[in-house]
Amino acid sequence: MMPSEIAVYGLGVMGRNIALNMADHGLRVAVYNRTSSITEDFVGELPTDSRITAHYSLEDLAAGLSSPRIIFLMTKAGGVVDRVVEGLLPHLDSGDIVIDAGNSHFRDSQRRWEDWRQRGIRFLGVGVSGGEEGARHGPSIMPGGDPEAWPVVRDILQRIAARTEDGASCCQWVGQGAAGHYVKMIHNGIEYGDMQLITEAWQLMRDGLGMPAAEIAATFAHWNQGVLASYLIEITAEILTVTEHDGSLRVNHILDTAGQKGTGRWTAIDALELGVPLTLIGEAVFARALSSMKAERVAAAAQLGSAKVTPASKRVIELDAIRDALYAAKIISYAQGFLQLREAAAEYDWQLAYGEIATLWRAGCIIRSRFLNDIRDAFERDPGLPSLLFDDFFASALRSAEPGWRSAVTLGVQSGIPLPAMGAALSFFDGYRSAVLPAGLLQAQRDYFGAHTYQRTDRDPEQRWHTRWTGDLSEEAIDD
Amino acid sequence: MMPSEIAVYGLGVMGRNIALNMADHGLRVAVYNRTSSITEDFVGELPTDSRITAHYSLEDLAAGLSSPRIIFLMTKAGGVVDRVVEGLLPHLDSGDIVIDAGNSHFRDSQRRWEDWRQRGIRFLGVGVSGGEEGARHGPSIMPGGDPEAWPVVRDILQRIAARTEDGASCCQWVGQGAAGHYVKMIHNGIEYGDMQLITEAWQLMRDGLGMPAAEIAATFAHWNQGVLASYLIEITAEILTVTEHDGSLRVNHILDTAGQKGTGRWTAIDALELGVPLTLIGEAVFARALSSMKAERVAAAAQLGSAKVTPASKRVIELDAIRDALYAAKIISYAQGFLQLREAAAEYDWQLAYGEIATLWRAGCIIRSRFLNDIRDAFERDPGLPSLLFDDFFASALRSAEPGWRSAVTLGVQSGIPLPAMGAALSFFDGYRSAVLPAGLLQAQRDYFGAHTYQRTDRDPEQRWHTRWTGDLSEEAIDD
Repeated sequence: MMPSEIAVYGLGVMGRNIALNMADHGLRVAVYNRTSSITEDFVGELPTDSRITAHYSLEDLAAGLSSPRIIFLMTKAGGVVDRVVEGLLPHLDSGDIVIDAGNSHFRDSQRRWEDWRQRGIRFLGVGVSGGEEGARHGPSIMPGGDPEAWPVVRDILQRIAARTEDGASCCQWVGQGAAGHYVKMIHNGIEYGDMQLITEAWQLMRDGLGMPAAEIAATFAHWNQGVLASYLIEITAEILTVTEHDGSLRVNHILDTAGQKGTGRWTAIDALELGVPLTLIGEAVFARALSSMKAERVAAAAQLGSAKVTPASKRVIELDAIRDALYAAKIISYAQGFLQLREAAAEYDWQLAYGEIATLWRAGCIIRSRFLNDIRDAFERDPGLPSLLFDDFFASALRSAEPGWRSAVTLGVQSGIPLPAMGAALSFFDGYRSAVLPAGLLQAQRDYFGAHTYQRTDRDPEQRWHTRWTGDLSEEAIDD
Repeated sequence: MMPSEIAVYGLGVMGRNIALNMADHGLRVAVYNRTSSITEDFVGELPTDSRITAHYSLEDLAAGLSSPRIIFLMTKAGGVVDRVVEGLLPHLDSGDIVIDAGNSHFRDSQRRWEDWRQRGIRFLGVGVSGGEEGARHGPSIMPGGDPEAWPVVRDILQRIAARTEDGASCCQWVGQGAAGHYVKMIHNGIEYGDMQLITEAWQLMRDGLGMPAAEIAATFAHWNQGVLASYLIEITAEILTVTEHDGSLRVNHILDTAGQKGTGRWTAIDALELGVPLTLIGEAVFARALSSMKAERVAAAAQLGSAKVTPASKRVIELDAIRDALYAAKIISYAQGFLQLREAAAEYDWQLAYGEIATLWRAGCIIRSRFLNDIRDAFERDPGLPSLLFDDFFASALRSAEPGWRSAVTLGVQSGIPLPAMGAALSFFDGYRSAVLPAGLLQAQRDYFGAHTYQRTDRDPEQRWHTRWTGDLSEEAIDD
């Protein structure tokens, strides 16, 4: 029997689909699962001429692979990955490649890369997005880890990845160490933001403008033809047409407590660690936390009264204002996400190609959208672009959307519709383009109560000063 | 020579002031610093009858203390604390007490408490707030750690702590393990929020209403007589009267890049870990990060244009609306902070007395305010109060402030004044009192692309469901 070119370890639905995807693309695939019956069930359903070969021991699995061995882990993230690799190690040779394709935290991937190369294993930490469908028919793949392993696996991973309309592969090298899982984490954070923004637009249309459900669904479908065209807008339009037998919308019967698996939280935590103002995704993560406090909200509604929503019959703003708010806030969210990538690259020593990252997300994954082409174009025009907001296309888009954005947020503020993400985006926009913020007062307060000192805009910017606030109000120059 | 009752280890300005404070209260204090000259300089300035005794070796320090020894560490936070205690250990006896009074991360305090009790040391992790002045004349002290050590040190710590107007000590037992440092962390996060809100109110008055500086200062001084009465409002009123020789406000010459030492960030990170929607403090931390991007903001102002601020001559809202916004947002911030304490108590197994925590902060520390009396009263009325917003006093205060709050935030939205904290607070308020949020759509999206399933409000709430979104739209019950 010909040796297999790659092994898939872990045969949950994602692992099974990846293995089938690989076989579809002509690869000979060895598969293994710790519980043998799962392997048996999977291969039992395959045609006899399948390129997929089952193995029931690690020794057998290792013997069935060509050299260097390539093992694609589709296990749960966390300690499982370490235990699996410890179990594999006795059966591997120096130079073999282990690919962790789970949702691992980037710090774990960094540690694994550093530890395992000491032990002769070439490690790749690879973000995979696209859910079950993506795994089966072409996911977005964000590979990072050992740069020497990349040329060995490139052809395989690019074959199974999604492709953009113009034929680019949604699998390009991201960077060494944890860079791949980091970029996947940012992807997921952005996904949280996109989803939160869509729910806010929905509530504005339903409660702010009093639009009937069918009209809202048609509006999302219409938006999906323009700058907002994206997978999430598309499925939202579909979801909002699904009714129950009594004609009511199914979504209105779904419990409004949003789950989360943690990657949005990781993104916001690392933003705080890096000092990046990732306000929109931060609010989106907090909004899920608030949604999960269902019983407390129901009690608070009784205690505090409901918001006085504007009468539904009266259109107080144009529908386009809501589209503008959604679009402008989305630009801010991605600008913040790429800002975090920029700071992470500096902090963790990665060379990130931002235009290629936009391309990676262009197809196969949850946040796929036309919008990502515009981001790719912006970084092609200027690979050193410090922020998306400095690109003329996006700056101009924000200027056009600004009046509607302000109207939509005002409607929320006035009528009690919570718009944490659209509102945070507007505050960020107004703060980011403020050459002077009121933080001078904050520095004065810190100097008053804690002698933290401050700098002055009209003197040597390196010099620090302290005012004797409770004394004669004189200033003294402070040297470190 | 009489043995000393307590040792202060570390003679930076905080350590020196704490030692002087202890001596003022009749305690015999041993002092030690790793660099001997610092100790010499300190005791050289003391009167000959001082109760403070210098020691120049750890052996000598240990020999100069009564039993059980009590050692008050005033070192930097971090690894220093571990190294200092390792150095001390050979000179200590079982049952001696080590008090870490630095700004340690609560997870370090938890670890130290667990490790060191194995080695016979009774550890206390103690938050101290109030800066240099507080240390000298009475800080707020938040003690946690080994419950058996508390009765031994209680009298000493309560003697040196601040007292409220009605005589209560701002030092009360918080809880075991890391509880003291945790409560200090929340205090600091709240401090970030309070300061951010004040800068927003300042900018609204200056740029939104076009008020002259003297009038703004007088307004803060006036507010300091009412529900907003607090140390930070008081010093803000003072800061805004300080002018240069040319008559310009000094604060307008202070560089608008806010520093941070990290405790606000820790608070927001733990909120994310716990799933607590701490939106206001989160925005305050992010606002400091944005303020520090000065060069980028100056460039963005050129690229994107400045915000179109409402003509300064025209008063578009009442001044009281800004006061109402500041007050309402402050209530939300404290409600979120106490919500985090509630979740932390459940997660980390502490019994927290929320009314006593409010009392601890009532004097001596940066966030001291009349407002904290109202919080103490709320928890006295109902110690099991799930949230400040369920207290009639605060619910009524919010209802009164709501119209002005909405007007002030609208002014910011319309005129391009960034109000990240006031705006986030309003979104939280409107979300918290929403019996139904639009998160049902978000759950539908997650079920669509990831088969994450959902619950329904009109059926068994435990049952999870999945819709075949891309199929016949039928629903299936999913069992775990």
